[in-house]
Parts: sequence; C-alpha cells; structure tokens
Amino acid sequence: MITLGDIPRKHSRLDPDKECIVCDDVRLTWRQLNERVNRLANALAGLGVEKDNKVATLALNCHRLIEIYYATSKLGAVTVPLNFRLAPDELVYIINHSDAEVLFVDHNTLDIAKGILPELTNIRERIFFQGGEEGWLDYEKLLEESSLAEPEVEVSEDDLCHLQYTGGTTGLPKGVMITHRNYMTTAIGMGLALEFQPHYTTHQVLPIFHTAWWPVLIHHLAGCRAVIAPRFDFAEILATAEREKVTHINMVPVLFSWLLDFPDAEKYDLSSIRYFSYAGAPMPEEVLRRCIAKFGPIFQQGYGLTEAAPLGTILLEEDQCRLEGPPELVRRINSCGRESLVTEVRVVDEEESEVPPGEIGEIVIRGKNVMRGYWKDPELTAKTLRGGWLHTGDLAETDEYGFIYIVDRKNDMIITGGENVYPFEVEQVLYEHPAVLVAAVVGVKSAKWGEEVTAVVSLKQGAEASEEELIALCREKIAGYKCPKRVVFMETIPTSAIGKVLRRKVREQLQS
Amino acid sequence: MITLGDIPRKHSRLDPDKECIVCDDVRLTWRQLNERVNRLANALAGLGVEKDNKVATLALNCHRLIEIYYATSKLGAVTVPLNFRLAPDELVYIINHSDAEVLFVDHNTLDIAKGILPELTNIRERIFFQGGEEGWLDYEKLLEESSLAEPEVEVSEDDLCHLQYTGGTTGLPKGVMITHRNYMTTAIGMGLALEFQPHYTTHQVLPIFHTAWWPVLIHHLAGCRAVIAPRFDFAEILATAEREKVTHINMVPVLFSWLLDFPDAEKYDLSSIRYFSYAGAPMPEEVLRRCIAKFGPIFQQGYGLTEAAPLGTILLEEDQCRLEGPPELVRRINSCGRESLVTEVRVVDEEESEVPPGEIGEIVIRGKNVMRGYWKDPELTAKTLRGGWLHTGDLAETDEYGFIYIVDRKNDMIITGGENVYPFEVEQVLYEHPAVLVAAVVGVKSAKWGEEVTAVVSLKQGAEASEEELIALCREKIAGYKCPKRVVFMETIPTSAIGKVLRRKVREQLQS
Repeated sequence: MITLGDIPRKHSRLDPDKECIVCDDVRLTWRQLNERVNRLANALAGLGVEKDNKVATLALNCHRLIEIYYATSKLGAVTVPLNFRLAPDELVYIINHSDAEVLFVDHNTLDIAKGILPELTNIRERIFFQGGEEGWLDYEKLLEESSLAEPEVEVSEDDLCHLQYTGGTTGLPKGVMITHRNYMTTAIGMGLALEFQPHYTTHQVLPIFHTAWWPVLIHHLAGCRAVIAPRFDFAEILATAEREKVTHINMVPVLFSWLLDFPDAEKYDLSSIRYFSYAGAPMPEEVLRRCIAKFGPIFQQGYGLTEAAPLGTILLEEDQCRLEGPPELVRRINSCGRESLVTEVRVVDEEESEVPPGEIGEIVIRGKNVMRGYWKDPELTAKTLRGGWLHTGDLAETDEYGFIYIVDRKNDMIITGGENVYPFEVEQVLYEHPAVLVAAVVGVKSAKWGEEVTAVVSLKQGAEASEEELIALCREKIAGYKCPKRVVFMETIPTSAIGKVLRRKVREQLQS
Repeated sequence: MITLGDIPRKHSRLDPDKECIVCDDVRLTWRQLNERVNRLANALAGLGVEKDNKVATLALNCHRLIEIYYATSKLGAVTVPLNFRLAPDELVYIINHSDAEVLFVDHNTLDIAKGILPELTNIRERIFFQGGEEGWLDYEKLLEESSLAEPEVEVSEDDLCHLQYTGGTTGLPKGVMITHRNYMTTAIGMGLALEFQPHYTTHQVLPIFHTAWWPVLIHHLAGCRAVIAPRFDFAEILATAEREKVTHINMVPVLFSWLLDFPDAEKYDLSSIRYFSYAGAPMPEEVLRRCIAKFGPIFQQGYGLTEAAPLGTILLEEDQCRLEGPPELVRRINSCGRESLVTEVRVVDEEESEVPPGEIGEIVIRGKNVMRGYWKDPELTAKTLRGGWLHTGDLAETDEYGFIYIVDRKNDMIITGGENVYPFEVEQVLYEHPAVLVAAVVGVKSAKWGEEVTAVVSLKQGAEASEEELIALCREKIAGYKCPKRVVFMETIPTSAIGKVLRRKVREQLQS
C-alpha cells in the first residue's frame, strides 16, 4: 500500500518525461509535477506545517489543488478542501472547526476569503495562487524559493490525508476523516475493475474539492494523465476533449441531460472517449438511453459517498448499456452496480439484517475505504459506523445477482396519505417527456396529505409542456398516489457544486 | 486490502458462473471453486486446524493445491508447499521444522510420503488427493461430507498465509514467512502495471508449490481464469494453450530455449497468447531475440525472489522487445526492469549506499511485499532485512532511468587470477553459438587461478560444437581472463523444479 504522496514520487522515477497534468496552458510531466510538489511541501514545512496539521484550500479547479493534495500528504499533513459555493458563514464554520492553519485561495475566491478573514481563528498563513496581493504569500514564488528535495517525513497509510466536509442534507457540515488507505483502497478497487492503457486520459470536469476528484486519483495511480477543466463550460470541455484525445469523463446525471441538450456537441470529434462514467445520483433511464444512442455503449456508473472515499459499487458498461435481452439482465441498466473487489455492500433492515432480493432496505458498506469517522464527532461516528458498517441513508433493493437498485435517499422519501413515495420513481416518468430537461420531486407539507407529491420541472430551451400534460403522463405510468398533485416550472433547479439536484433546496424554495 | 481467501469468496459473489480453473478434465466456476474451498476449510477446521496451524502439501500441479491455499487462508492457517523434487531427508527436515500438522499428497508423492512418515514428528492428519489408501483421509470424501458455509474466522492481512521453503544456495532450507499483505501487494503491483481483460487466461506451467504460482494469483485477483498444467510436457502445454485460448504463459529462460528447439511448435495455433513472461534468471539476449522472432514482441519479464513474494521489478514488452533504436533504449532488453508501483528497488554498495548508474552493487528491495522473515531464524532475518531492506544477494547495475541490469548472483561470481568474472556474461556468448541449447559457467577450484572459469554445455539434438570452437567464440567477444579454460559437454544440465539452471549442482558434479 502506498500513500498519496508516493504517486508523483514513484511515477517521477518510473516515467519522468510522461505528461501527467494539463490545465489551461500548464502542462506538467511527472518529474515537473513531483518537483513542484516537493517544493511546495518543503515551503509548507518551512512555514511550520507538521504532521497532522490542517491546510485548507478554497479554489476552483486548478492543477495547484492536486499539487497541494500531494504536498500535504508528503508531510503527513491534512488537506481540508472547501466547496467554493458555500456561504461565508459556512466557510467560517468549517475552517474554524477543522483547525486549519493555512489557507490557499485563487483569484475567484480571494475576495470571499478576505471578507471572512477576521472570523478565522486558526489561520496563520495565507497563500494566493496568483500572487501580488499584500498580506498573502505568492504560491509560485514560494515554490521558486524552496528546495526540490524529497521531504523525509514518515507517512503511514493510516494517517489522515483529507478532512472532506460534506453538507449532508440536514444540520451542520460534517468533517469526513479520510486516510491514505481509504483513498488507495478505492483507487485499487477501481484499478482492478477497469482496464488502463498508458495513453488513457481523464478529463476532470467535476470539482476537485469534492471526492469526485477520484478520476484524477485513479488515473494518476495507474500513471495516466489528467486534464483539468478549470471552468464548467460544455463548449470548452468538448473542445479540450477533442484536442487532448480524452478517454474518460465523469459527470453527474443532470450534466448528461444538459449535454444531450447542448446544441453544438456534434461539432466535436469525441471518438477518443472510451468511457463516460457518472455518479452522485441515479440516471433516469430515458436519459441513459438517449446518451447511449448518442455516444454509444460506453457508460459506466459508480455509487458511493464521501464517507466511503467514495467507492461503494461499480456498474461496468456491459451491464450499464445492455438495452436488449432477458429482462433480468436488461434491468441492470437501472442498477448502480455491485460491490467492488475491495468493498462489501449490503442492503439491511432496521435490525441490520440483510433483506432478501426485492425488498427495500438501507445500503451499508464495509471496507478499508470507509472513513475513520467524523472529525470531532465521536457520537455521530459511532452511530454512522455502528456494527462496523457505514450506514449510507440510501434506500435500495438487490436482485439475486447482488446488483443494487437505489430506490432513494431515506430522507427524501415522501409520505403522502400514509403511502411511501420514492421521488426518483416519479422523476423517471417525468424524464420520459421530451420537453423535460431536469425534474425534481419533493414532498410539500400539506394538512390533507401529510406531504403532497410536488414536481419541479425545468424545460428544454424552446420546448413546452403543461402541468396537466405532465400529471397525465404520470397517471399513465404509476399509481395515482405517486403522481404529483402540482407541477411547478422553474428556469433553474438548484444543484450542488458537482451538479446534483438538491431536493432539500427545492423543498425550501417551494415552502418559502 | 483483502486476504487470499477473499479471492474466491468475492468472485463467487460477483461472477458465480464464470470459469476460473481448468485442470485436466476438471473445470470449476467461481461458485464451484468457492464451495470446494469452503468445504475443505470446514473439513480442516473439523480436524482441529486452527489459526496459525501449519498444513503441508506435497503434490504436482493440481487445482487442489490452489484450493488448499485458499482454504487454509480462510482459517488463518498457513500452507507449507513442498518441492516434490526434494530428497526424503530434505522433506523430513522441512516438514518437522515447519511444525506442519497436516500433510496432503497426490498419487505421485504418496510413496515418498509413506517412506518418511515414521520420521515426521508433528503430522497428525494425512490426506490423499486420490483416496482409497488405508490410513489416509480421502480428499474428495472429506469435501463431500463437509459444509459449504463460509468459515467465520477473522483473518488479517498481516497473518501468515505461506511458509515457503527456499533451498538457498548454501546451508539448510529456510522457511520464508509470507503474509496475505505480501502476496496482495505483489498482485496489486502487477495488476496496476499490466492490463487485464475479462477473458484473460494464464497457463500455469511452472510448479504451484513455488512463488512462481503468482500468475494464478494475479489472474484470480482480477477475476480471470487459470489453466493448470499438471505435467511439464511441451506438446500438451501447447495443445492446451490452443484449446483454451490461453493469453499468458510464464516460464524460466531455459524453458524458452527448449521451446525454440521443440520441433512441433508450429503445429499449434498460439495466436491467443497476449504475453509470454519469464522470471527466475536473466534470458540470454540471443535466446530472447530468437523468441521475439518466433513469437512476436510479446515478452515481459519480472525479477524477484521468494523473500519478496516474489515481486521485485517488472519489464514490460515495450522495453523488453525493442530491438532497434537508440542504444540506451535498446539496451533495456537486457534489463530485468524497474521497481513497480508498490516496491522500491535500489542497488547498493557494502555500506548500503546507492551506487551511481553503471557501478555494480547488490539489489535491495523494500515494500509491503517483503517477507516477515525466516521462520525460527531471527538472526538470518535480521541480517537479510537489515536497515529495512531485503538484501537479495544479486549483483546488478542501473542506468540513469532506473532500469536494473543483473550482473549475477553474488555467490556465483568467479574470482580467477584476482579478476572478477560474472558467469552470465560468459553464458551470453556461448548462447550465440547455434548448437548450444543450455550453458552454465562456474568456477572450479584451481591451484593456479584460485578458480578456473569452466563452461558446461548441452547441445541441441543432432547439433555439434567442439571445445576449441566454443572457447574461440568467447575469445572473440570477451576479455581473455573471462573465457572458459575448459568446456564440459553434458547431456542434461541440473535445473531446479522451476527449470532454473543450478550452478551450485553443476559445480558439485564437476568437482566430484
């Protein structure tokens, strides 16, 4: 087992001149990356950063984030990657709660950071990617003035490497403690399931501050290249994919809906793409079918969560893209896959017993990828990891082959007139309507029903659909009590930084 | 990280109906293999085998050996795989030294085992693969009568799984303590370096009792199939390779010499073979070139040793088979490769300092693959693992790219007239002669020279070469003091069970 910092160190020995990072006009070979990482690590050590110290980052996608991940790891220090879309109060809470002593920012986040500085209790060093700002150390100058020698800190696989805050659906953000072994277990599990060829190149379009940075991790572990998208812009992403002969892009389902609707996709040569993968939420079948029709049977899926760093299950393209054949096999296109070689995934009832195939229970995960716990929250840790299993809060059923079918989030389940309704089932139907771009179904408090099934829909540009029409479509396909009582049209439906539809925010907007 | 026993357990969940073992007329799917493994484990538990107990095997290649490896692992017990070519006294020593309590034999080894039984101090259960022998439990009957439930023993990656005795070049056999983590580190290191596709199939022709069973291990970890050759017979091996569409065969160099000389190789369709690999000794360049000419640029190499379970370095086909181009690249065909992602390999001097490229030193290895130590020999363990590095006794130089070029075994170096001669260099020249099948160069004690360079040669069937002719060939190519003073022709040159030329035995025969 190796640590995060070993990745650039080893590859700079084995493949010094191979390109490993592309980010805007920056191109780095393994030797160059490792030198920059060492320089940064030595600079941080010079600033007094020691083992277990926390280093926070607040920046949009950039090769420097990857450099920081590797550099802190070489010191046995811990990165606290911050979500750049959080509100100032949330940032203050997380930075103080994490005990971070160093803060990195870029030109996008400098002003936010300046605004909250007075409230940050532990930050003693501030570093600015672009430099030239009074009171902030200049990232590139720090590197220039620092030694490129390999830092000599003994780092163990069981040391923390990341404190990854996750919003959760309720309450305060929780700091997920991720060790080197956690991330390496995920990377090895995926590395053994997927095939890697030396030219493989991932295009990291989701935010790096999130565990959604795993495509960089697994490609880098295998010695392959990562192209980093500094902005989420389809035209730019597709042009880069063509230019860099990208072989893999990971997104969340809603982004694939947008991609299908993106008018200029045909202009780009995407023939180098070997896999599209998605995670973060189930993909409505209708969207998947259109994706396969447009891009071919090259889709894979993973299910996971930050607490599992983030590996839970994997669905390879042979099962993800089988559109014809025996129903028990075709059904798998709606599965999130099966446990990997390095994880155990079960679906259990309230008494922690495995439920039989076809019954709904909670997904639990066990493996060396599962977090050490929540930072400074032993109670929640004990509750979440009870019995040695990570309790995900996701509801699912299995089939006899061990494939897992997510039903929904435990907290998103709607209880209406005493019946359980799983929003995803209703959303699946809405996506069948050709005008629907994004759909979110939530429960809105109601005196009559307890909760009332409510659909929020955004339509494709120029397309039209009426409330009655959408409700009628649902009535055709699913039980009456599951059908929306109301359809609300919104231009933009709230999503998280990685593009996951946030039903909680949708609910808030409806109830405000 | 997972344990050996997890391999069949996981794949029987993930791919129950996929074939994973073929051995003569036995074909097993993952479900069948895992059931047999569980039955055997439960039977052994019923016989009182507990965690850390030792179980010895004495058998030619057979699927049952793999079953035993997995079954003992599920109990946290330890397999002691015995070399079936050892003399009775050696077997007695190893079985007693290992504390083995159970002995498995097949029809090839039953008589040897019976002969030494009175001298075995700890063996309390004897199991015979074929059954029907008084005083011996019947393997298949044991399985039939036993439960197929998954054994519930907590096994850690740091538990021992194998005690692998290695002859060493001098003194008594040493019991190398190999943990699950050791083997898994090797398997993951190789798994990350090589590409695996679901249909890949290795043909295990080298003995399974040796760490040369690694092709089964890495293919099984990746969920791929292993075809086991019960006998070493080229006609049968090639026919099986054709029939089973084998994709990988691992051998030792001398077997490739034989294969090149095997008259009927052309009769078989070997187009499914994606890789040939070799290990155990450097391949003479002449032999390698002929192999590539005959089979294509599909050769890979590993360097390792039992104490490293057995991974040291890997040379992939792009470097192994580059016959043209810049000399510093073409040179790599004579390298044994570079450290893997999970191992560190250095070449050091007597003071343990890394030597500069081009200078000769001893290969040392560090990594989670390195053995826990020698069983019951803390002194030799401390000496061999001094400073945290495994000292291999192999002499080598590196180039500036980290490629390692083995010069020879430390103990095989000949000192003649005060000059150092490395036998492999002389053997390389002898292999250039078209009549030479196998060559071994050793030092024979001499009053005049201290040691006298002596070549032992076996010729290809029907081919001819004289002593003078071979010495003259050497004089053309290498310094006079390196040239053999004498050439001895032998019909068969002594080799180990995996086919490695045993220079020590050659020396003994010359001096007796």
